[in-house]
Amino acid sequence: MTDLPPTSEAAPWQMQPIALLRSPYREKFGIPRQPGLVDVTSHVDMVAGYDDPAMVEGLEGFSHLWLTFVFHACAEQGWRSRVRPPRLGGNTRVGVLASRAPFRPNHLGLSAVQLVDIDTRGGVRLTVLGADLLDGTPILDIKPYVPYADAIADAAGGFAPTPPTPLEVGFLPAAAAALQGRAELEMLIVQVLSQDPRPTYQAGEVGREYGMALADVDLRFRIHGGRVEVIGIAPRA
Amino acid sequence: MTDLPPTSEAAPWQMQPIALLRSPYREKFGIPRQPGLVDVTSHVDMVAGYDDPAMVEGLEGFSHLWLTFVFHACAEQGWRSRVRPPRLGGNTRVGVLASRAPFRPNHLGLSAVQLVDIDTRGGVRLTVLGADLLDGTPILDIKPYVPYADAIADAAGGFAPTPPTPLEVGFLPAAAAALQGRAELEMLIVQVLSQDPRPTYQAGEVGREYGMALADVDLRFRIHGGRVEVIGIAPRA
Repeated sequence: MTDLPPTSEAAPWQMQPIALLRSPYREKFGIPRQPGLVDVTSHVDMVAGYDDPAMVEGLEGFSHLWLTFVFHACAEQGWRSRVRPPRLGGNTRVGVLASRAPFRPNHLGLSAVQLVDIDTRGGVRLTVLGADLLDGTPILDIKPYVPYADAIADAAGGFAPTPPTPLEVGFLPAAAAALQGRAELEMLIVQVLSQDPRPTYQAGEVGREYGMALADVDLRFRIHGGRVEVIGIAPRA
Repeated sequence: MTDLPPTSEAAPWQMQPIALLRSPYREKFGIPRQPGLVDVTSHVDMVAGYDDPAMVEGLEGFSHLWLTFVFHACAEQGWRSRVRPPRLGGNTRVGVLASRAPFRPNHLGLSAVQLVDIDTRGGVRLTVLGADLLDGTPILDIKPYVPYADAIADAAGGFAPTPPTPLEVGFLPAAAAALQGRAELEMLIVQVLSQDPRPTYQAGEVGREYGMALADVDLRFRIHGGRVEVIGIAPRA
């Protein structure tokens, strides 16, 4: 506070994306607000200059990774001192640094993901579970999850001590028909919608119809009480 | 791998330090290689433009924080595809992304720290435990530790499944005398030296004397077997 640092230490740093994330999330709407709640499969594709298989040698011994990424789709909107976390119903404001909200200085995000596969044929592609990030998210760093330093079981979780309660998800007949032979897509839809994708300020609106682009389809759905009803599923244009 | 991203997503991002860390670590030598092993008290001083108390409202409900920082003292030396982790004796190389080494692309670091105090009189200063970082480290982000998403108790820890075994630390009479009435400094020295600060390629060298600047003193010490012997403690010039 006194004893302010030399400006050199507070000078900006230029960060180069080392990988891009590939996921079924085509728009911000619908992405769970906390990582690890949905087991969506994503790919981390190392970009040119960072695609040397030597860089990931030994990574296969770790079950989980940290991804440090940029909330790139929010960067243009800048940051705020206070945000309204969904976990507080969207009405109570907290400091942005007391949240994991994307509208933060530097727009940095952090997700622990499960490492499923490492493919080094023709570049480097990691397959991960639980990275609930927009398709195309720039990854700035990948680190092993080191349980003895990172897993603090007795940490106090402030206003988010437990995961949110998932909603039930059902399909109207037309939607169910569109899922014939697509078990994986059905699982993805159920997982994503059970996390209640509505903006919290609309959570009280009954019967409103929502649309969402997910993987290769467009969804239409409604939410009443604790239940999501999928009305339609159409191939995306 | 195929299907390469538009270059815009892989364009560089400019990151502005929002805070600077103040710690007793005056040089890289001696800093524990994994965060959280030593309970050193540090201060996170928000820099001008990010020192609005509103930004940390609600943070007091969380016991632990994530600090995302830059290994600024290593940035000039660039990065390597493979590194030799101390945990593997310094002889075996692994991919840099399978390590937490500082010589990584973007030089980003990540530490879980315990939040001890928030002082918003005349700026914002957080007091934290376990941030084993060089004095002056630029902090790019501060996030609450959310146990249900971040604490993965059953994660597999690769080549670093457990914390390293600490060394015993003893003081020769002259060093012990210099610690009269400085219990806190003594505790700091014991914690830091017990983590074996030697570069691993020298771990076999018996009787070699090392020097280290820590807090306001210069230390001299030797290591034989599992024991560190502090030879001298002098006020720093």
